[in-house]
Amino acid sequence: MKTKVAVGIIGAGRIGKLHAEHLAFRIPQAKLVAVSDIYVQAAEQCAADFGIPHVYADHRAIMADPDIDAVVICSSTDTHAQLIEEAAQAGKDIFCEKPIDFDLERIDRALQAVDEAGVKLMVGFNRRFDPNFKRVREAVVAGQIGEPQLLHIISRDPAPPPLEYIKVSGGIFLDMTIHDFDMARYLIGSEVEEIYVAGGVLVDPAIGEVGDIDTAVITLRFENGVIGTIENSRQAVYGYDQRVEVFGSGGAVRTLNEYPNTALLYNSQNVQRDLPLNFFMERYIESYIIEMQTFIACVAEDRESPVSGRDGRIPVLMGYAARKSYEQGRPVKLTEIAAL
Amino acid sequence: MKTKVAVGIIGAGRIGKLHAEHLAFRIPQAKLVAVSDIYVQAAEQCAADFGIPHVYADHRAIMADPDIDAVVICSSTDTHAQLIEEAAQAGKDIFCEKPIDFDLERIDRALQAVDEAGVKLMVGFNRRFDPNFKRVREAVVAGQIGEPQLLHIISRDPAPPPLEYIKVSGGIFLDMTIHDFDMARYLIGSEVEEIYVAGGVLVDPAIGEVGDIDTAVITLRFENGVIGTIENSRQAVYGYDQRVEVFGSGGAVRTLNEYPNTALLYNSQNVQRDLPLNFFMERYIESYIIEMQTFIACVAEDRESPVSGRDGRIPVLMGYAARKSYEQGRPVKLTEIAAL
Amino acid sequence: MKTKVAVGIIGAGRIGKLHAEHLAFRIPQAKLVAVSDIYVQAAEQCAADFGIPHVYADHRAIMADPDIDAVVICSSTDTHAQLIEEAAQAGKDIFCEKPIDFDLERIDRALQAVDEAGVKLMVGFNRRFDPNFKRVREAVVAGQIGEPQLLHIISRDPAPPPLEYIKVSGGIFLDMTIHDFDMARYLIGSEVEEIYVAGGVLVDPAIGEVGDIDTAVITLRFENGVIGTIENSRQAVYGYDQRVEVFGSGGAVRTLNEYPNTALLYNSQNVQRDLPLNFFMERYIESYIIEMQTFIACVAEDRESPVSGRDGRIPVLMGYAARKSYEQGRPVKLTEIAAL
Amino acid sequence: MKTKVAVGIIGAGRIGKLHAEHLAFRIPQAKLVAVSDIYVQAAEQCAADFGIPHVYADHRAIMADPDIDAVVICSSTDTHAQLIEEAAQAGKDIFCEKPIDFDLERIDRALQAVDEAGVKLMVGFNRRFDPNFKRVREAVVAGQIGEPQLLHIISRDPAPPPLEYIKVSGGIFLDMTIHDFDMARYLIGSEVEEIYVAGGVLVDPAIGEVGDIDTAVITLRFENGVIGTIENSRQAVYGYDQRVEVFGSGGAVRTLNEYPNTALLYNSQNVQRDLPLNFFMERYIESYIIEMQTFIACVAEDRESPVSGRDGRIPVLMGYAARKSYEQGRPVKLTEIAAL
Repeated sequence: MKTKVAVGIIGAGRIGKLHAEHLAFRIPQAKLVAVSDIYVQAAEQCAADFGIPHVYADHRAIMADPDIDAVVICSSTDTHAQLIEEAAQAGKDIFCEKPIDFDLERIDRALQAVDEAGVKLMVGFNRRFDPNFKRVREAVVAGQIGEPQLLHIISRDPAPPPLEYIKVSGGIFLDMTIHDFDMARYLIGSEVEEIYVAGGVLVDPAIGEVGDIDTAVITLRFENGVIGTIENSRQAVYGYDQRVEVFGSGGAVRTLNEYPNTALLYNSQNVQRDLPLNFFMERYIESYIIEMQTFIACVAEDRESPVSGRDGRIPVLMGYAARKSYEQGRPVKLTEIAAL
Repeated sequence: MKTKVAVGIIGAGRIGKLHAEHLAFRIPQAKLVAVSDIYVQAAEQCAADFGIPHVYADHRAIMADPDIDAVVICSSTDTHAQLIEEAAQAGKDIFCEKPIDFDLERIDRALQAVDEAGVKLMVGFNRRFDPNFKRVREAVVAGQIGEPQLLHIISRDPAPPPLEYIKVSGGIFLDMTIHDFDMARYLIGSEVEEIYVAGGVLVDPAIGEVGDIDTAVITLRFENGVIGTIENSRQAVYGYDQRVEVFGSGGAVRTLNEYPNTALLYNSQNVQRDLPLNFFMERYIESYIIEMQTFIACVAEDRESPVSGRDGRIPVLMGYAARKSYEQGRPVKLTEIAAL
Repeated sequence: MKTKVAVGIIGAGRIGKLHAEHLAFRIPQAKLVAVSDIYVQAAEQCAADFGIPHVYADHRAIMADPDIDAVVICSSTDTHAQLIEEAAQAGKDIFCEKPIDFDLERIDRALQAVDEAGVKLMVGFNRRFDPNFKRVREAVVAGQIGEPQLLHIISRDPAPPPLEYIKVSGGIFLDMTIHDFDMARYLIGSEVEEIYVAGGVLVDPAIGEVGDIDTAVITLRFENGVIGTIENSRQAVYGYDQRVEVFGSGGAVRTLNEYPNTALLYNSQNVQRDLPLNFFMERYIESYIIEMQTFIACVAEDRESPVSGRDGRIPVLMGYAARKSYEQGRPVKLTEIAAL
Repeated sequence: MKTKVAVGIIGAGRIGKLHAEHLAFRIPQAKLVAVSDIYVQAAEQCAADFGIPHVYADHRAIMADPDIDAVVICSSTDTHAQLIEEAAQAGKDIFCEKPIDFDLERIDRALQAVDEAGVKLMVGFNRRFDPNFKRVREAVVAGQIGEPQLLHIISRDPAPPPLEYIKVSGGIFLDMTIHDFDMARYLIGSEVEEIYVAGGVLVDPAIGEVGDIDTAVITLRFENGVIGTIENSRQAVYGYDQRVEVFGSGGAVRTLNEYPNTALLYNSQNVQRDLPLNFFMERYIESYIIEMQTFIACVAEDRESPVSGRDGRIPVLMGYAARKSYEQGRPVKLTEIAAL
């Protein structure tokens, strides 16, 4: 077991800085030794904030450093697949933000490089590490609800992202629902065979004008017989609405939202409480810390990645099936898109 | 306004006795004057329990009694349409248990008789009168959640009915989901255009052997753009699971289950509460009382029936669309079955 | 076992009518045969509403009727003790609304008459039959929380009664807290030794002007070591606030308030639900029905009264101890007032 | 405004390390420059863990360092008063863990030194910074519940501390209730005039044998008329039970416990959730971070300490009044102990 895992971060944007902070301050087993960003000022600021000794504009300096054990890829999506290949060839263990890529062929090539190099790859589906969803998975695995039969995922953002972002996001299924596709596979522990989508533009017509939708209800048929639904909306005015429910032959388990406090207010009009948390970095902060701790522990203890390359690939495939279902108004089998 | 509405009950089975008790003891505006049942002993027992002066084996005595203002039809489903026609021709206002019939032509004939006679018809979708669901509808109507966008109905029975019943029930969509179809139309206030079903036999293979399914997830596309889902299971081991959620541009409203008490128990293992109510007569008792109060008030005050013949017909049509969708594995438009 | 218990009601005011309705319509084992009220019109209306054959202005006609098994005393408090004595001498089983009397000597005389006659006496502490508090008692008895150590009772009315009523009410401790004193004894199953009161006039100065207080916090020391507190307020603007919590060596159990519906509303400002029930006849309606069912069953099956004369006497004694503690600003032992 | 506040920590035990971690990693405005502990190895480990440049066995090196702006006193209670005096004389702003001392004279001397030096003093009542209790205070201040009338604080530890600790703890009132005394003053914003205690040894006889009690119910009479109660137990088997409720003329506000997750499990027996958090460092971790952020911000921005020396002194005085009340079985005015 390694006593300290030496890490280089590639990409010092919002999510890169988040991981950097956790690696620097919250995960004693990690040693953050380098950061790179094509905007080198961003990398420099990140280094200053978190005491990182080496700063580069070019990520290849990180790949070339033999003292670095692992890389954390937080650059823009279009660079992920290429960086995974380079890191694999350099023998680094890899954490990569989701999605690996929007192109299944590029994903396959990246995963092949990882396989051939025998390095670890963990994909950043942080929600698996949220204590609520983790507890649901534990209940399912422990048989606390018998055989799972129905799954319901509610996943609503507080507000749509900027239109400029939506245009390059890959569409709602690859940008937003991808997290829920991963959650569905994680909670049920079985693959989805068929997807049916009923969706529309109910939040903002401008989203429709750039070719996307903002509201979707997705029906999932799993190989093991479970039937699931995902409810997506780009805008829940009351905050981040993220709940799941699994129903089975022996019971059910469900989670509630997270709130900034537990205070209940009673007055002559009604009973009130403050709104749920509404920013993903607040709502999911604990999951990000546990996710990165898990990655570092996997590297240090040579354990298998709990979110594999396959786990990164299949939700993308599901995204394409969902889009096809929406466009054609019929259930679509995943095998119509590609082999699992 | 009539000071007292004279009522005859046709059918003294479980639901007939329930209505009789409410008419006798809980609704001062009603006067229960006659009860009929082809098993005349059942009618006699009912009369004895609730102080009903006239007892008949043949319902035609009720139809012929000029002092009776209204009839409450609680006999077996296959007699409903015929009894509605007879009652209409006799000039009685009519409360009829759901469903009117499984045959759309017979329904249409019955509704035509009602129209021609100018009598009132109220169909027994009692759940509309449940204080929880009523509050949700009020929130929608009052604009408390803005424009509705998504609907989710969870409707799970505590245990499947006997197989003998299932065989003649019309199938899950006409027997169980029919309540949820009504609820969907009621809560959203718009018609459903298209239905997609993903279902299966997950509870008991014997249900499959008699040609039915026991688990279904139904996607509804409404004319006004709302997308809804219904989750049905014939068996929730923890009790009667009946919840709804409507999500809109300005917020959301949802209901919880009903429990026998509010006690929370904390011990060294976990926090516990007793299971939800698990018998429909307990869970929905208040809705049955308010439903019948409403019918009597409509007759007395000459107000329009809040659950019309059309409201009785369309959920049957939806049931056929659901079955077709399940059989053909594709979304089905209601207009494929019949005009609305 | 008697098949039907013949009942006479004395007093046809608000609570008398409530019991009459339940005896007439909700308790098949009871037969309501007579009602008396010094305002004979009230008795006549009650008889008309609930089909009671005999109506009297003078209760002695009820006492004299050999066919009447049991009396339900709902007249004004100052008549209770006398009526109990008369009913006992007439050999009737007795249900009497709380309190038996404000005078301990008159209570003792009435209880002696009951003892000598060997009739049953049940005192109307209806809250014991509320499903929430009953569940708490069951948890305590079943050892689900180990040995009880702490008790907390929150008992707040939605609004103060009229000043005219307060003047003759016996004061907050004998009018309002008396229910909580009974609840404390019932839940813990041990007698209180000592009472300490901190109270004041915080709701309405006019209540102070007529010599009463409207807010009180009462500390109870039980013989078995449990320490309890009661929080009383004459005015909770959000509704009827009635909760209890028992804490013990093995856990805790607590109850919540009752609401008209379970709907939760989310909007851009907060999460809301409707206020708790705010009228005691709504909040406690189920307890009144079960209470009267229990009395009738005790008479029919010759079982012991679950709320004995002693249970009626001790809370009055506690009320005097509370008043003395409030007046003298020190803890007062019950034995300072009278022997238990 | 100072851009960075230079801090020295005195005492590297459990709580010292906690503050050191927060100062090092969670509060960018702080610069941790020195740590001292009479067990110098503890200080050295702390310095290594959190990158602190200077390590001392003797705290006087910290006092003597002109570059240090503020000290954080985390040594044993018996040293607090002396260290406050030294720090004040050295011109350092001071954060000191609770309690300042068990001796009121020593407290007064320390506070005088602070006054004379014109430095800041903030006492470590961290619970004020807990988001739940803070929200309650905000509701009170904002008038959301009208005029406060009643306060109820439930404060139960998961398990008693070791007997060796209890012997030197100053007793339950100065060790445990002191937090609740502070909470009471904080939430209501008024001083307590009189205290009445009903207490006992209900958890563990060994606690009684060393002269302490383990269970207490404390009644507080505030100057502004509010009546409060505190429920203390050294052992809640279900976890850390920390709730408050303030009731007023316009409503009420109350908080719930904190849980490790929101998952609800339904099975054929009951509805369950996991137990509340049961370790104070988990339950109150956020409050510790916000507390220290607040102290650093006060120093940097020259703002007044939100938890003053007076706030540190009065709860000790209340502890003595509580003990006297318990010993003498009567309500005790704070002025019997000392002037406020």
